[in-house]
Amino acid sequence: MWKPDRESKKPLYAQIADHLEQRISYGEFPPGSQLPSERKLAEQLGVNRSTVILAFSELRSMGIIEGKSGSGTRVTMTKWGATPKHTPNWKRYAEGGNFLPNLPFMRRIREALSGAPALIDFASGELSGDLAPSEEISNLMSRHQYTAYLGYDHPQGYIPLRQVLVPYLNKYRQIQTTESSILITSGSQQSLYLITQCLLSPGDAVAIEDPSYCYSLPMFQSAGLRLFRLPVDRDGACPEDLRALYRRHRIKMVFLNPNYQNPTGAVLGMERRKRLLELASELGLPVVEDDPFSLTSYGGMPPAPLKAMDAAGSVLYIGSFSKIAASGLRVGWMVAPNAIVERLADARQQMDFGLSVIPQQVAAQFLKSDYFEPHLDRLRMQLQFKRDLLIAALKRELTGLISFTVPEGGLHLWCKLVPQVHDGKLLEEAIRRGVVFVPGSVYGSDSGYVRFTFARARAEDIDAGISRFAEALRALLEVPSP
Amino acid sequence: MWKPDRESKKPLYAQIADHLEQRISYGEFPPGSQLPSERKLAEQLGVNRSTVILAFSELRSMGIIEGKSGSGTRVTMTKWGATPKHTPNWKRYAEGGNFLPNLPFMRRIREALSGAPALIDFASGELSGDLAPSEEISNLMSRHQYTAYLGYDHPQGYIPLRQVLVPYLNKYRQIQTTESSILITSGSQQSLYLITQCLLSPGDAVAIEDPSYCYSLPMFQSAGLRLFRLPVDRDGACPEDLRALYRRHRIKMVFLNPNYQNPTGAVLGMERRKRLLELASELGLPVVEDDPFSLTSYGGMPPAPLKAMDAAGSVLYIGSFSKIAASGLRVGWMVAPNAIVERLADARQQMDFGLSVIPQQVAAQFLKSDYFEPHLDRLRMQLQFKRDLLIAALKRELTGLISFTVPEGGLHLWCKLVPQVHDGKLLEEAIRRGVVFVPGSVYGSDSGYVRFTFARARAEDIDAGISRFAEALRALLEVPSP
Repeated sequence: MWKPDRESKKPLYAQIADHLEQRISYGEFPPGSQLPSERKLAEQLGVNRSTVILAFSELRSMGIIEGKSGSGTRVTMTKWGATPKHTPNWKRYAEGGNFLPNLPFMRRIREALSGAPALIDFASGELSGDLAPSEEISNLMSRHQYTAYLGYDHPQGYIPLRQVLVPYLNKYRQIQTTESSILITSGSQQSLYLITQCLLSPGDAVAIEDPSYCYSLPMFQSAGLRLFRLPVDRDGACPEDLRALYRRHRIKMVFLNPNYQNPTGAVLGMERRKRLLELASELGLPVVEDDPFSLTSYGGMPPAPLKAMDAAGSVLYIGSFSKIAASGLRVGWMVAPNAIVERLADARQQMDFGLSVIPQQVAAQFLKSDYFEPHLDRLRMQLQFKRDLLIAALKRELTGLISFTVPEGGLHLWCKLVPQVHDGKLLEEAIRRGVVFVPGSVYGSDSGYVRFTFARARAEDIDAGISRFAEALRALLEVPSP
Repeated sequence: MWKPDRESKKPLYAQIADHLEQRISYGEFPPGSQLPSERKLAEQLGVNRSTVILAFSELRSMGIIEGKSGSGTRVTMTKWGATPKHTPNWKRYAEGGNFLPNLPFMRRIREALSGAPALIDFASGELSGDLAPSEEISNLMSRHQYTAYLGYDHPQGYIPLRQVLVPYLNKYRQIQTTESSILITSGSQQSLYLITQCLLSPGDAVAIEDPSYCYSLPMFQSAGLRLFRLPVDRDGACPEDLRALYRRHRIKMVFLNPNYQNPTGAVLGMERRKRLLELASELGLPVVEDDPFSLTSYGGMPPAPLKAMDAAGSVLYIGSFSKIAASGLRVGWMVAPNAIVERLADARQQMDFGLSVIPQQVAAQFLKSDYFEPHLDRLRMQLQFKRDLLIAALKRELTGLISFTVPEGGLHLWCKLVPQVHDGKLLEEAIRRGVVFVPGSVYGSDSGYVRFTFARARAEDIDAGISRFAEALRALLEVPSP
């Protein structure tokens, strides 16, 4: 994105004023619309807030913007064109629709990361660049001829990819299926979106784990669903809790992440798996099983998914490459009964007309290639290494102040903070010191929890990141509450 | 997809029975669920309906399925597992949610095409494989290193692609904009979906052209919008009609396709463009301008888009590579005010977490490359050539039976049928003879219109396709109505 040129003779504030004037004249900020706050702009452009204030004052003196510094600056209505034009009230349109915005903490974290890429990132739930098989994928792309037909894809997704996924699911996840039962989606996210939008109706009750990454997704609330909680302990969610919820609220669907649950890292116990499936079958209750982390298992084979034991056909199974290869591929899959696959594929045509064939070709080549197994081995080793770095740093810096259970797979470590601190204040203190994490309340837990993703930061930054976090925490502890 | 092996010694019906038994046992068709109809399965597998009837009878005798031939065949409840399991009522779930299914005619066409790929395709609104720059794209992919970071993309889309689109939009579409005003989407379809889902609320009134491809998209109805029609003549829609609609129904947004409108091919007249923009500004009414076809203009530069003359900032501009390069890339873009781009980018994170970076890298490379201009020249020439082939065939086969206006750009020819025929019957007669088209009623027009896409079929098939269509039409005319 545009940044002012610090080598230029033109002062920074004047460069910024010119840049904003251009964006205003092109219609990015139409007459009457609000400009980003001084703080936000300063963060985006990497300058002091005072520089932005100077730039705004320049634009104000030219009659292009109006409003006092600090209290919302607007583009003037009359400047552009001889007569005042009636621009649509874009702000009102932007506030319309059913779609809830992302959670404030998530937006704040994204904003901080985009303004300061050097922040140590324990927040983004993805692999670091060096863990992704970028070179392997680049090699495959230059080696294979991608002259395949580039027309609209099959509504269920690229057939050769679905054909490769059949033996993949059998070998790695003990799932028996056919290519016609598979829907390729834009990561797990699109599978969840399709399920919540197309199979459920506003007002329906669904059960999700507590804590759960599902809370971080306003899509559940946007779809008008009522969320009920299944507390997660070391062995995951409890079938008895599900039965009680069903009795009270007529649960329509249950969402589970049985292996290396996000955020807790818990693995659903074998006995509970059996009882959950029995219960689902007894109640005719669909189970959505999200399984993104299994192949990261540090110690060999993870437990088989629910889908592999699903004699009654209760499970919609979701998988993805995002956490085991590259989130930027945007390739995920769902295994589901025919009626569901057809319905969701049809609805998806209305939303985006299906996925690009190119990443699907690349994903299929990667799965078939000799690169896949060595990549997985390396990934597991590296993740375990980073997890251990994180744990060592936490023990050194924060013993007595936090507690956690060591996860055996996945990308995250879930920590309980012993002292009581304010989630938002802790996040701001951490950002100020150059580190981000996700406050536990994002996942629906009580305040006082933190999710650290150890997969995303560079190994050499983990130590420093935790030192900064510890400083931030201590800074809050030193200030007595008023 | 799986097809029976005609070389095998095992009879076709037995192969089909085994195949279905496997899919049933894997849960694709759970206990109690309905199997596809005999006709549909026969079409999918490329066999006679009698072969499917035999296969069903085999499965029925094994107790795997039940129900009479021809009247809906179901998987039995008790066969799988000792005690009857309660499979979720997937059919009811598939019927839930807000999302309307695709139109029956569109489903029928897709079904026919997937069963018989040799059908001559005047229905799919896309380029034929030889018109897409497949070789150029393959060359670019093997030449460039795609080792870029494969993490989650910027919510607005890949920055280098947005940076290339700024001069592209300026050079080819006379639009001045900045990379921060651009949102990359999965084709125009996703732009429309985001707008209808996130900027409008159920019950809102919107104006669309009549006829319009928008009618073929149940997304408008799925979003609960009330659609009002702006009749399209040779010069497109009339500003006065829009004013009347606004007065009566408080229109909240208007959707236009000013250049080579789909399906009519009409170009909005210059005088009307000015009056429409004045009206939009007077009413504070947002205009969504979909502009997928402009660069196909056979005779040089097409009219500039509304967005290029949009002094009041009323226009949301939508473009895409689907009709000028390859629909399978799934790369489109929207140019919009900041508040809208941020809102839609945020909502899209909830739906699919953004596009894959790979096709965006490829699209950026292609736009920057020396391939782009020669590709466009060749595309325009070839489209004009195919249009002329279609017109010659229509004149030879159907003079007196149809009328049309010759389009100067785009992929489609819109025809009025002089005799009165039944839309659905004509389509079935055509499918039986090996050709598909889209009945005009799909676009909201009265029955008696047909859209022929000349871009998709191979040039050498156009003649035969129109002969078959003429036969189908004549077959209906010969049978007197009962």
